[in-house]
Amino acid sequence: MAFSFTVIKKDSTSRARLGRLVTAHGEVETPAFMPVGTHASVKAMSPRDLDEIGCQIVLGNTYHLYLRPGVEVVRELGGLHRFMGWRKPILTDSGGYQVFSLGALRKISEDGVRFQSHLDGSGHLLTPEKVVEIQQDLGSDIAMVLDECIPHPADREYASASTLRTVRWAERSLNARNKTDMALFAIVQGGMYEDLRTECARELTALPFDGFAAGGLGVGEGEAALRAMGEFTAGLLPEDRPRYLMGVGRPEDIISAVRAGYDLFDCVLPTRNARNGSLFTSAGKINIRRAEYASDARPADESCDCYCCRNFSRAYLRHLHQSGEILAAHLLTLHNLAFYHRLMESVRNAIREDRAEPWLRDSELKLQQSESR
Amino acid sequence: MAFSFTVIKKDSTSRARLGRLVTAHGEVETPAFMPVGTHASVKAMSPRDLDEIGCQIVLGNTYHLYLRPGVEVVRELGGLHRFMGWRKPILTDSGGYQVFSLGALRKISEDGVRFQSHLDGSGHLLTPEKVVEIQQDLGSDIAMVLDECIPHPADREYASASTLRTVRWAERSLNARNKTDMALFAIVQGGMYEDLRTECARELTALPFDGFAAGGLGVGEGEAALRAMGEFTAGLLPEDRPRYLMGVGRPEDIISAVRAGYDLFDCVLPTRNARNGSLFTSAGKINIRRAEYASDARPADESCDCYCCRNFSRAYLRHLHQSGEILAAHLLTLHNLAFYHRLMESVRNAIREDRAEPWLRDSELKLQQSESR
Repeated sequence: MAFSFTVIKKDSTSRARLGRLVTAHGEVETPAFMPVGTHASVKAMSPRDLDEIGCQIVLGNTYHLYLRPGVEVVRELGGLHRFMGWRKPILTDSGGYQVFSLGALRKISEDGVRFQSHLDGSGHLLTPEKVVEIQQDLGSDIAMVLDECIPHPADREYASASTLRTVRWAERSLNARNKTDMALFAIVQGGMYEDLRTECARELTALPFDGFAAGGLGVGEGEAALRAMGEFTAGLLPEDRPRYLMGVGRPEDIISAVRAGYDLFDCVLPTRNARNGSLFTSAGKINIRRAEYASDARPADESCDCYCCRNFSRAYLRHLHQSGEILAAHLLTLHNLAFYHRLMESVRNAIREDRAEPWLRDSELKLQQSESR
Repeated sequence: MAFSFTVIKKDSTSRARLGRLVTAHGEVETPAFMPVGTHASVKAMSPRDLDEIGCQIVLGNTYHLYLRPGVEVVRELGGLHRFMGWRKPILTDSGGYQVFSLGALRKISEDGVRFQSHLDGSGHLLTPEKVVEIQQDLGSDIAMVLDECIPHPADREYASASTLRTVRWAERSLNARNKTDMALFAIVQGGMYEDLRTECARELTALPFDGFAAGGLGVGEGEAALRAMGEFTAGLLPEDRPRYLMGVGRPEDIISAVRAGYDLFDCVLPTRNARNGSLFTSAGKINIRRAEYASDARPADESCDCYCCRNFSRAYLRHLHQSGEILAAHLLTLHNLAFYHRLMESVRNAIREDRAEPWLRDSELKLQQSESR
């Protein structure tokens, strides 16, 4: 099945929209959140757990899979879906973000980026072409081009040169793709410079990419800048292609990005926070480690119907976490992901039912209130 | 519902029997294996995972629960079943085994055993009465008396004095029980001395206990001594009461103990081994960390129908384990417990269908062959 994206409904008061992605492994209704499956596993979740909470698509990390177990192994075993037992769509990142995070261990050239493995120090070269090939071998439904996530802050000269290279790399990526059922998304960079973002988007959207992402956001620029630049970048992207805000973020960030017209999101926040005992609930964030929950018979979130909240008390969850039990990571992750997926389902329903604006306003207000508590 | 035990069928060629325990939280068909839920959680398993693999009863550790979260918390929250979300029967140990393992941190007297918490060094006294009270507060279906697990080797004088004290403690335990729906099992000690075992069993079986356990086995005495003393002790126990071989063990140990007439088993082996990558399979033990499995597309056990074996390859399981993913512990534990429970179901069916002897012989042979491979 060839990749397609349809806007089902546009909100009349904001840029929010309800959409449908069709991929070789099924459909995704957007706006959608993608849990992060770094090592071919969304941490502490089995595929059936993800099914249960309504997960439609997961993100795989090309960098990690390339190093371990290696692309050949995954390909031999029938591709990433089969390898990890996940039958629904998978988006893979390009590995660029992880490679650039290696700092001194990597070196950028026009050709690509050379780096040393964080596992064994072995040397590797990722080029735009290689990154497309890897994602094809993994059997990704949606692949991302190799780009440079510009660190914050970055001076204009650096940001400009990097952004232009990202554009050239994107073009090479497009030429390298030869699997027709794998969508390829380009990534708009440009740092915190509106004119660079504009130029980057203009160049990229002239090319036949299946979707566009906003990259280099949520990297320390602060909440206001994230929102402003996120919204600005969304406005540069075509209506008829999916928009993906990479690596963002908190529920309030996602809500404001849905308002700005984004369709896809990923973030390690719900899974990582869960392992630290931090839970998203309808009454705000709580940390289950706190002594006040030691004999609290209530579920983590009284408005949640996930397996964790249906069956276990805060006291029990706290006890599991204090005792270092694996079940704590499992149950808390299940809840946090259920919270994120319910949030997305809720906003999709609001758009569908012509009540996106009150929903967005109420949700933002509720999240603000619970934060300031 | 008062506790009861019925022998449904006796094997004609061995002491193996099919039985039924009735408890306040439902029935258990024996021979049965009890996964160990140390901190009110069978490691890496949720209650529904345990349900799925046919688990009928779990073991809770009084010592650990007493220290954390504390008995008051569990009682306030409705007892251990409700606390951990497990609706089926629970057997709790006395905490004695853990306390005696503390070595220099504990001191035995006629009254009981004083010890310092391994968590915070706080001082505690466990008496036979206190241990019954704790288990009543936990809401255990089957409680164990406080006993001393005699270390191996032990000289006759020590073993004799300890065994006699275990008998006196058992009598005090029986007098301390005031919940009629909680079964209380005594524990036959006596070290490696047949006459002490005989004397201990004679004294204990004269008292109205609901069941009897063989303790102090699998503590380093070696396989032959374990089997001989296990079989000898089983022969001292009444036909009409359940027999529980504590802390044992490997599949082959359990099979030989079923042959000797035991009904209940517990061991950390399937769960602990799983976390170390060691799997029980119908073709023998394998360690998933081995390089030979790096691209092995077969399931962990080709004869297993558990969720892990239905969905994931050895290559994937190895990758998860190598990557330190929580999902590895989850899937491998699920498989090992499924293996143990299928073994028990299989022996129950063999007894039911008058083919216990060939089943026991074949199973022993198969396990020997796979070990020597």
